[in-house]
Amino acid sequence: MNEKESSVKSDRAYFRICRVVTLMLCALLFTVVVAHAQSDPLPSWNDGPAKQAIIEFVKTMTDTMSPKYVPPEARIAVFDQDGTTWVEQPFPTQGVFALHQVGVLAKKDPKLAEVEPFKTVLSGNKAAISKLTVKDIEKILVATHTGMTVEAFQASVKEWISSAKDPRWNRPYTELIYQPMLEVMKYLRENGYKTYMVTGGGQDFVRAFAERVYGIPPEEIVGSAADTKFGYDKNGKATLTKMPKVLLVDDTVGKPTGIHMMIGRRPVAAFGNSTGDKQMLEYTQAGDGARLMVLVHHDDEKREYAYGPKVKVGTFTDELMAEAKKNGWIVISMKNDWKRIFAFEQ
Amino acid sequence: MNEKESSVKSDRAYFRICRVVTLMLCALLFTVVVAHAQSDPLPSWNDGPAKQAIIEFVKTMTDTMSPKYVPPEARIAVFDQDGTTWVEQPFPTQGVFALHQVGVLAKKDPKLAEVEPFKTVLSGNKAAISKLTVKDIEKILVATHTGMTVEAFQASVKEWISSAKDPRWNRPYTELIYQPMLEVMKYLRENGYKTYMVTGGGQDFVRAFAERVYGIPPEEIVGSAADTKFGYDKNGKATLTKMPKVLLVDDTVGKPTGIHMMIGRRPVAAFGNSTGDKQMLEYTQAGDGARLMVLVHHDDEKREYAYGPKVKVGTFTDELMAEAKKNGWIVISMKNDWKRIFAFEQ
Repeated sequence: MNEKESSVKSDRAYFRICRVVTLMLCALLFTVVVAHAQSDPLPSWNDGPAKQAIIEFVKTMTDTMSPKYVPPEARIAVFDQDGTTWVEQPFPTQGVFALHQVGVLAKKDPKLAEVEPFKTVLSGNKAAISKLTVKDIEKILVATHTGMTVEAFQASVKEWISSAKDPRWNRPYTELIYQPMLEVMKYLRENGYKTYMVTGGGQDFVRAFAERVYGIPPEEIVGSAADTKFGYDKNGKATLTKMPKVLLVDDTVGKPTGIHMMIGRRPVAAFGNSTGDKQMLEYTQAGDGARLMVLVHHDDEKREYAYGPKVKVGTFTDELMAEAKKNGWIVISMKNDWKRIFAFEQ
Repeated sequence: MNEKESSVKSDRAYFRICRVVTLMLCALLFTVVVAHAQSDPLPSWNDGPAKQAIIEFVKTMTDTMSPKYVPPEARIAVFDQDGTTWVEQPFPTQGVFALHQVGVLAKKDPKLAEVEPFKTVLSGNKAAISKLTVKDIEKILVATHTGMTVEAFQASVKEWISSAKDPRWNRPYTELIYQPMLEVMKYLRENGYKTYMVTGGGQDFVRAFAERVYGIPPEEIVGSAADTKFGYDKNGKATLTKMPKVLLVDDTVGKPTGIHMMIGRRPVAAFGNSTGDKQMLEYTQAGDGARLMVLVHHDDEKREYAYGPKVKVGTFTDELMAEAKKNGWIVISMKNDWKRIFAFEQ
């Protein structure tokens, strides 16, 4: 065999190997694609119009041939938290934290126990606590949420949330996350979405656990925000101290403002559960192309809570239901659409 | 050949193919890694301490064995804009835009030409314009930056910036971007960083071109921000209107506040050029592990501008230089460290 023949033979062998490699890679890719297409992205959902609408939306907006195609950079989804991704009854979790922190403060400064509204909070008298005024609540929020560095505040949230338990389920609050919503978040992220939380709750509160619990990093948490003051600690290191001055109330009309300020794009998909989310859903819907607006309706007293117009926190009013119908928003019935509500359920 | 022999033979063939595939993939990976390591990530930089420090920082903080390793989720870099990533002399570009917009408004409403400070602006008398008071400038900003939807404002910025030219270079302002800084942004992004712009300029102004010019999406622009008001247009569609109420002045102490509000993490790397960036660099440095603080020093009158304590806008004072030295911040000499300043230079 001369040099030329040897070279041709080696070229052919190389070609064969390349071909095998290519075929194997194609086969592998095909297997992955088929497996992906066949697996159910929303296993905790019952088959029904809500599940169908979400899957249909994702399929349409990722189809480059569809007029409703959404380019990757525009794939922004926003989720309210209280009542949309976790339990908000009988009290929003941040409220429970604030009342608990009054006790922590009173241990450090016993005089606090003699001053209202802290005295009432420390009494544990639920009837009296439920009668606290907006001014009282403001005082409690200022005492428990300001005056410390942002790191110290987040450390206090982490400490509390790692041990505090919801009395009804006797489980940490971070286990009272709606598993079907976690699946929607994951499904959207797998399809190129950034999944933002847009909550009336405090940014720094939610950021203390959102990455661990939802897989949402701090920079994708939009929430009510207080001002921070730049300064130096005793070692001369730059710090930010939480101040009693509101920068953004991220609820109702404040949600689109917060979205514009911190995201700067109109979302393509929005998930809420109350009148506090109405404007966010309207703002989402007013954009061009494919849009997905979803409301969680709490109609499952047995497995979670059922609440309507009479509950003051997180209301889903008759007017909101009428607007949802008129605008073609998807209304999730927790009772009918969710096979299971929490990850710990079998 | 019986069935068993045939099976063994086929297994061996399969093993050989797998081995070939593995070896080829390893070779390919090696080639990519070597090519990556050998190519210069900062070709517009002269070899020197600044370039060396930036490359050293990236190598150290991506090395999992180093105590200065930075996990991917914490890789946040922040860049000031005016004077750090583009030319800010003789006037910051947004100021040029605001003065231009007065003319646009006067065409629609000729009465404006009779009212101060608009009359002075429209006169084109530079000496008189330079004497406008803070109150006058406020009136100009309110007239040109508020009262329209965020989309209408951004459309006006896009229209202006696509045609306006800097008189010295006779080129669009978006060509007066510092090529060496674009290379740093790209280099950091290739190493897992999110590159945020943290500018004293208006968020909505910068967002109108940042994705095209810097590759930075709207959600990674932190800037001075005015409030927006939720409402409905004549078709009943949800809109946000820009309001004359400041939410954040993203300069000096406002930069760490803006970073905390919109990013929620302490950055690992920060780039600035003036006393307006001092607190942002201090805030960045006060975190744990690897840190990179960089200041651009404008010392190249021939190719760009040279400015020191006497220039009121974008000052690099003697005090700032002293702090940079004390804190070990990297000071870029535009004259010595940058091989070329703009992409259009050969």
